[in-house]
Amino acid sequence: MSTSQIGVVPSFIAGQWQTPEAAGGTEVLDANTGELITIVTGGKLDIAAAVAYGRGVGQRELSSLSLHERALKLKELAMYLNERRKDLYEVSYKTGATKIDSMVDIDGGIGVLFTFSSKGRRELPNSNVIIDGTAEPLSKDGSFLGSHIYTAISGVVVQVNAFNFPVWGMLEKFAPAFIAGVPTIVKPATPTGYLTEVAVRMIIESGILPEGSLQLISGSARDLMDHLDYRDMFSFTGSAATASRLKSHPNVIDGGVRFSAETDSLNAAILGPDAVEGTAEFDAFVKVVVTEMTSKAGQKCTAIRRNIVPAAQVDAVIAAVGKRIEERVVLGDPRVEGVTMGALASVEQMHDVRAAVQDMIDAGGELGFGNLDAPVVRVAPERDALAAGGAFMSPLVLRWADSRNPILHSREAFGPVCSVVGYDSVDEAIELAAMGAGSLVATVCTNDPAAMRTLTLGIAAHHGRVHILNRETAGSTTGHGSPVPHLVHGGPGRAGGGEELGGIRSVKHHMQRTAVQGSPNMLTALTGVWHTGAAQQLAGSEKFGAQPGNVHPFRKSLAELKIGDGLASDLRQVNQQEITAFANETGDTFYAHVNPKAAEANPFFPGTVAHGYLLVSWAAGLFVEPAPGPVLANYGLENLRFITPVAAGDSVRVTLTAKKITPRVTDAYGEVAWDAILHNQNDEIVATYDVLTLVEKEDTTYANWQD
Amino acid sequence: MSTSQIGVVPSFIAGQWQTPEAAGGTEVLDANTGELITIVTGGKLDIAAAVAYGRGVGQRELSSLSLHERALKLKELAMYLNERRKDLYEVSYKTGATKIDSMVDIDGGIGVLFTFSSKGRRELPNSNVIIDGTAEPLSKDGSFLGSHIYTAISGVVVQVNAFNFPVWGMLEKFAPAFIAGVPTIVKPATPTGYLTEVAVRMIIESGILPEGSLQLISGSARDLMDHLDYRDMFSFTGSAATASRLKSHPNVIDGGVRFSAETDSLNAAILGPDAVEGTAEFDAFVKVVVTEMTSKAGQKCTAIRRNIVPAAQVDAVIAAVGKRIEERVVLGDPRVEGVTMGALASVEQMHDVRAAVQDMIDAGGELGFGNLDAPVVRVAPERDALAAGGAFMSPLVLRWADSRNPILHSREAFGPVCSVVGYDSVDEAIELAAMGAGSLVATVCTNDPAAMRTLTLGIAAHHGRVHILNRETAGSTTGHGSPVPHLVHGGPGRAGGGEELGGIRSVKHHMQRTAVQGSPNMLTALTGVWHTGAAQQLAGSEKFGAQPGNVHPFRKSLAELKIGDGLASDLRQVNQQEITAFANETGDTFYAHVNPKAAEANPFFPGTVAHGYLLVSWAAGLFVEPAPGPVLANYGLENLRFITPVAAGDSVRVTLTAKKITPRVTDAYGEVAWDAILHNQNDEIVATYDVLTLVEKEDTTYANWQD
Repeated sequence: MSTSQIGVVPSFIAGQWQTPEAAGGTEVLDANTGELITIVTGGKLDIAAAVAYGRGVGQRELSSLSLHERALKLKELAMYLNERRKDLYEVSYKTGATKIDSMVDIDGGIGVLFTFSSKGRRELPNSNVIIDGTAEPLSKDGSFLGSHIYTAISGVVVQVNAFNFPVWGMLEKFAPAFIAGVPTIVKPATPTGYLTEVAVRMIIESGILPEGSLQLISGSARDLMDHLDYRDMFSFTGSAATASRLKSHPNVIDGGVRFSAETDSLNAAILGPDAVEGTAEFDAFVKVVVTEMTSKAGQKCTAIRRNIVPAAQVDAVIAAVGKRIEERVVLGDPRVEGVTMGALASVEQMHDVRAAVQDMIDAGGELGFGNLDAPVVRVAPERDALAAGGAFMSPLVLRWADSRNPILHSREAFGPVCSVVGYDSVDEAIELAAMGAGSLVATVCTNDPAAMRTLTLGIAAHHGRVHILNRETAGSTTGHGSPVPHLVHGGPGRAGGGEELGGIRSVKHHMQRTAVQGSPNMLTALTGVWHTGAAQQLAGSEKFGAQPGNVHPFRKSLAELKIGDGLASDLRQVNQQEITAFANETGDTFYAHVNPKAAEANPFFPGTVAHGYLLVSWAAGLFVEPAPGPVLANYGLENLRFITPVAAGDSVRVTLTAKKITPRVTDAYGEVAWDAILHNQNDEIVATYDVLTLVEKEDTTYANWQD
Repeated sequence: MSTSQIGVVPSFIAGQWQTPEAAGGTEVLDANTGELITIVTGGKLDIAAAVAYGRGVGQRELSSLSLHERALKLKELAMYLNERRKDLYEVSYKTGATKIDSMVDIDGGIGVLFTFSSKGRRELPNSNVIIDGTAEPLSKDGSFLGSHIYTAISGVVVQVNAFNFPVWGMLEKFAPAFIAGVPTIVKPATPTGYLTEVAVRMIIESGILPEGSLQLISGSARDLMDHLDYRDMFSFTGSAATASRLKSHPNVIDGGVRFSAETDSLNAAILGPDAVEGTAEFDAFVKVVVTEMTSKAGQKCTAIRRNIVPAAQVDAVIAAVGKRIEERVVLGDPRVEGVTMGALASVEQMHDVRAAVQDMIDAGGELGFGNLDAPVVRVAPERDALAAGGAFMSPLVLRWADSRNPILHSREAFGPVCSVVGYDSVDEAIELAAMGAGSLVATVCTNDPAAMRTLTLGIAAHHGRVHILNRETAGSTTGHGSPVPHLVHGGPGRAGGGEELGGIRSVKHHMQRTAVQGSPNMLTALTGVWHTGAAQQLAGSEKFGAQPGNVHPFRKSLAELKIGDGLASDLRQVNQQEITAFANETGDTFYAHVNPKAAEANPFFPGTVAHGYLLVSWAAGLFVEPAPGPVLANYGLENLRFITPVAAGDSVRVTLTAKKITPRVTDAYGEVAWDAILHNQNDEIVATYDVLTLVEKEDTTYANWQD
């Protein structure tokens, strides 16, 4: 592994590792010691070749796999990387990350792969077409329907990432793109891209991914956008200034490149009016504030920059935060025992943060805790001489006479720095939070549900995520600053306007949603999902649409079953005796089933009616094939609606049609959803639902069954 | 009505009609005759006041209504406008629209209101918070959950519309914004804005809408974007050049205004390889092509510009299209009997179209049908002298030696003009369609499901909508060029990258999606929907969580019922005799219930097990309150999953909890969804589902019931 870090950080383009000459490159130093680690050069890489390779080979290889197959590969990859975590930790220390910081980055990144693998297989079809929403009848006779599908965009996604999470930052964008079937070109930030390179090398060496699905650009590549068009996507994480330059590019403005940005924001934490000193919420708040200041040395786009607290609590909060920092935070080289906060990513970064703090002080901020002196740091004896080269900075808390001082709501010090300001009313707290002009996340810390609701709904439209903290969650929260793969990460306005993660939501961001209109047969052929009105091959009652010679669909394994295969039953008549018996046996003696006078008064019933549960139970009796076979279980039911009541004397029949078939990648069976429709003797619809079953791929369990 | 059209077209800003001086304004002429109709001026209006009024009064008034209440107002508005359609038709003729064109515009716009009203009430909660997706457990103990909500953006939406659909163009954007709760500022295009003004005046006069929800800017207002920020949205329909200027505005690039564009595109229609002359598909294709050329005189962003047909069919298609035009199309003043195609919207527009055609001919296109001579037109005798002032143009079909000639895939003649080009393979057809670089819509016309699938999936990522046409839909299609409110309208790349309509999808485009994290109690308080783990007030068995004194929740009307109210039942034991009896009564004698040996071989069952349908039937028996009361009916079931099998000797109990309460705006009852969970004697989860009921707002039907 280590050889790749001597000299220039290589790139991986069009299936080849490429290492440019070191000349003219940028030196990258160990954040803790200032030692030279590696050199990053750029600008000499053939970006056009990378884009062409992704659009060509990458698209072809990815599209040859289904959504589930790709999702499964992410699990394999996650397991592969999981075994090699320690190699990554070793490199990660050099970025100033503590062990815990590294776990957030590395284990967190691997966790994203696991989550997306699991969600991809649980929540998506095993094909390459995702249906969005329900079909819409567009003609009275049912011959013309509308629906929506998602298909992968036909280009590449270029992912430009920030320096603070070199592994997670890559994997959290790669995972959804990969499941969608879109080739990734990743460009990590120069200060920590050497760690991304190690991870990419592992991934490529694993041989798990199809060719062309992941390429790496190490070093600056300002012309990346020049090569893209409307087929492609550009996913940017970094400064608002760079985002602005990219978003103004003609290929975005006129060319239609899909552009998504996540820029850091002035995230707030609001302490509720009830959460005064001495409450569990106050303590939880202080804990979160200190975590956000010191984890990754405060270099997180999600870190809290503005603490908005009841005016009377400002002093108490600053004191408690200061006390906790003094008790808990040990600044130093993270390779040394006991260190809890490492260096900033680079000396340049440190200078930027200090300059931001100085500007804020000049504009009216006061140091409420901490100072700007060179900090005392804990380093290894053999590195003592180098300590001065480390990018260390002490945590600082600013206090403000004016809660509306514009600089505190707009100037970001991207390090262990935050402000505390006071509010007089909940409305003012909302207003102050909104002064961030759009943020990634806010914490609302209160144990009062009414205050929580006012605050959260008041700030929701300005935020991508709201973290509600109270005594119930103080011990179980995943934290203010940690995006989780299940939930969206991004935010409006200053936060960039983008949306990442959020489970399958981000997979869909790599796809085009297209409305499709056509006949039921055509939409069935297109999507692989049976649409009402499309052709059926029915067994059962010829009176109700069955063709002679068709086999009961429950006798077919997934190898034999086709969409549209089904069963039409005969009518079965209901009498009051049976309804009453069912009522007595189940205990469901609701008046509508047994009391004619009361039932008639009910606005929906003509008199006593059969239980809905009786009807679906009978339907099962009408469609079931009792003997052992490939259908193993009925594991559920969806969207059951009772449409027309069934009175004594009425009859019901059921039509069952194979609607959706989802073979599992890793099991000998799969899911089959059956469209079930109950009609009465007048062909009126009595009920509609989907029956969910597990069906064997091949008829094995009972292939030679003898009782 | 007519007085508003003499002189200058007024604007409606901050609750006041404003009519600037005519000086410096643009004269707007009758498209068919060149008569002066009105004058449009702009640039003197106080846009800042409109934005402030929307953000202030508009937001306040809209947010005081729920999603359902706003949706219902759209229905009222639709009925109000429906009665006044004829007044709108009269004005519409002046734009060159035929009666049928006017119906597309006016009735189509009113139809959007009806559809959104209905969908808003059927598909959205009756509150102001929409939950997106399911809750995600984020801690092992269930005390920390994640979810997503949509809330209205806190600013305004500015809608800049094109000249071709002055009524539909306004209403299709207004409807979703209004339901979302976002105030609209509409700016119609100068040539036909006088018709929009008449419609807006009707709407304002109706008094149906809350104050501030709709404002009108008549005339140019190039500084509109200067007044917006990340809280606002800008929805543009028009030329790519203007879209480009707007999208580059600093308030979009850096300020985070949500920008959506729908620009016209070079839409394709592909004739499948099977659909040769003589097939029903060929005929349907020709019909659609002529409709798209002549409806609105071809001035539709969705009109077909490129017909991509098998090389051997090019001549036949051109001939058949020409023949149909000759037989069917009568050009003239649409107020005259028998006229089927009107003028273009203005003489300037006509000059633009002719210039585009000339450029295409100069670059290699040939006139396959039609000519550039001044057309013969049918006008009223009293207007004969004015006929020369009309913006009339004959339909034209271009033929191309080179199917890849770039100009035919990039230059749009926004009138009754299209090209026909040949392809040799389905892959080439896909390639040619993609040369449009992103389109609103394409027609795929074939009766071959395999060709349809290849073509549709091949072009889907380049299109916002694909219209699949075959003999099954030739008589029932809503057409190539007609966006329907249920389906998205918009497209990638050249089409602008936006997405309008699509039912509730477009409502959500006016909202911010926010991830929320917190305890079950807090997420319940926030969303008004009960989350697993949140507090319950249970009646029933104290052994299983009921508190003494609680009333059975089915005895409570909506006025009394609270989220979290519920019932805990006692255990009921199952024996094999009951399972067998249920099998025999229902007919569901599936082996897993009655045949121990076969059941044991099944990978999911320990031996024979109770029917899932028996368990949910028993559960109903355990939770039902048999006597007449406010719960009127169980109308369905959702998300039923069987988790742990129940064998003879096991017991089950049910816990039912009021999860979601949706009072109807227009009925004396509403929907209540109940969380149902079945446990066995070991507290393992047997099944989970939602029970859907109708419950009275007040206990009336059976309030004084005596049997």
